[in-house]
Amino acid sequence: MTLISCRQLAPSVGELTANAEMATAAVRSALDERAALVVLPELVTSGYVFSDRAEAESLAIASDHWLFARWSEEARRGDAVVVGGFCERAADGRLYNSAAVVDGSGLRAVYRKTHLWYREKLWFEHGAALPPVLDTAVGRIGVAICYDLEFPEITRHLAVAGADLIAVPTNWPLVDRPPGERPPEVVIAMAAARSNRIAIACCDRTGTERGQKWTGGSTIIGADGWPLAVAGDDDVATGDVDLEAARDKRLSDMNDALDDRRIDLYGGPALAAPTPANLVG
Amino acid sequence: MTLISCRQLAPSVGELTANAEMATAAVRSALDERAALVVLPELVTSGYVFSDRAEAESLAIASDHWLFARWSEEARRGDAVVVGGFCERAADGRLYNSAAVVDGSGLRAVYRKTHLWYREKLWFEHGAALPPVLDTAVGRIGVAICYDLEFPEITRHLAVAGADLIAVPTNWPLVDRPPGERPPEVVIAMAAARSNRIAIACCDRTGTERGQKWTGGSTIIGADGWPLAVAGDDDVATGDVDLEAARDKRLSDMNDALDDRRIDLYGGPALAAPTPANLVG
Repeated sequence: MTLISCRQLAPSVGELTANAEMATAAVRSALDERAALVVLPELVTSGYVFSDRAEAESLAIASDHWLFARWSEEARRGDAVVVGGFCERAADGRLYNSAAVVDGSGLRAVYRKTHLWYREKLWFEHGAALPPVLDTAVGRIGVAICYDLEFPEITRHLAVAGADLIAVPTNWPLVDRPPGERPPEVVIAMAAARSNRIAIACCDRTGTERGQKWTGGSTIIGADGWPLAVAGDDDVATGDVDLEAARDKRLSDMNDALDDRRIDLYGGPALAAPTPANLVG
Repeated sequence: MTLISCRQLAPSVGELTANAEMATAAVRSALDERAALVVLPELVTSGYVFSDRAEAESLAIASDHWLFARWSEEARRGDAVVVGGFCERAADGRLYNSAAVVDGSGLRAVYRKTHLWYREKLWFEHGAALPPVLDTAVGRIGVAICYDLEFPEITRHLAVAGADLIAVPTNWPLVDRPPGERPPEVVIAMAAARSNRIAIACCDRTGTERGQKWTGGSTIIGADGWPLAVAGDDDVATGDVDLEAARDKRLSDMNDALDDRRIDLYGGPALAAPTPANLVG
């Protein structure tokens, strides 16, 4: 079993250093509790509700920022992995809504969100590549960011690429839902987990930012599709996840969740045994 | 709004005529209640738990069977559409797990299940074509059968092909689920509805057949992804569905559930405005 912790936070727009310190403190706290995988929200360094592109740009950081070295130091204590979102300024000056994957060896990968929500389109470029799956000490970790999750093509891609778990930094705007129901994004994540026999850990943000209420719906879902930890008032969702379960796609003696796809009819990636050659890193 | 009714039934293996009469009576009853779309279970003519291929063959019918003319007569009373599953014997003698779509004009389409569950693989051939979307008096109706639904490629295909609603004849074997949870297949259907902004009507079967307990989980889901009718002890799920809602894929002023797909990265069907030319029938 693998101890996974999502730490909901409420970064403040404009407070880059304070946000970075808060995020690092959250990683430290999770490592103190022996978490092997820590997931942080989307855009945890910058906040989300920018006034304009100039504000986003002023809060953007490069992937060699000291923050990731700090996360790596923490991760090294526990042979752990940290996944968190940040506002990225690329070498060419373009901005991306990105997620960093960090372990004790340093920054392992940066994924740039491929499906942009609403006004993100005004300041961010779309990522040009599908999200990676990384072979880590914790297992094979895939990444997606928020709205990406609503595209089953993304979760399918990550499952076929061999991910045991998808870490999802997210900022879910609070939307109406019927009484007693989970956030709709969680329902979508549950279905993706079940259809692909893969674990999913969504780390939402919390609070209200410039009038935007956030859902605070962080949820960890097992490879059977059922939630096993949900953030409460403490803004933490922590649970033991059986990542090995994601390696067994058999649904019956005669069925396999991925082999049963009819890619002859609808296309999609062919299944290859994951090897270091087709995993990132 | 469109009145849709799923009629859970418990066909008996071997009782072809009695099952056909029971299914027709269910259609009649739904039409008496002014349903515009009636969905019946998978393999409603034959039952599901066959001992061997010979038994399945003995219960198979061709698509010119009198049953469909009877459904058509009923449908004609209300300009309605009926979708139900049957054990099909093709002209070449092969067997398929099929669904018929019938309206007042007669049999509109037969869809042959493309993803076979468990021992179905011992007696049925896999369907060789993706499911159709039919332009009907009720709206644009797509079809899927049971395990097909667990493949998001199928629901995506039907949404891109212009379906307002997917009618899903199904036989869900009862599986364990945590207390208070819906059947996992319903969670998957809710996510597919929400991700594609499409309505879904699943008609399950009920009872126990040769030791196999069925879920009896018929559920109608709106294009917002929330269930609006669930079968109770009467084995009927009936609800008014806003099929027009499925024609509007906008999620915000800058987002569209289908246009936002990154088919440049992961492939998949391009979006075309549905026209009679690319709809069946």
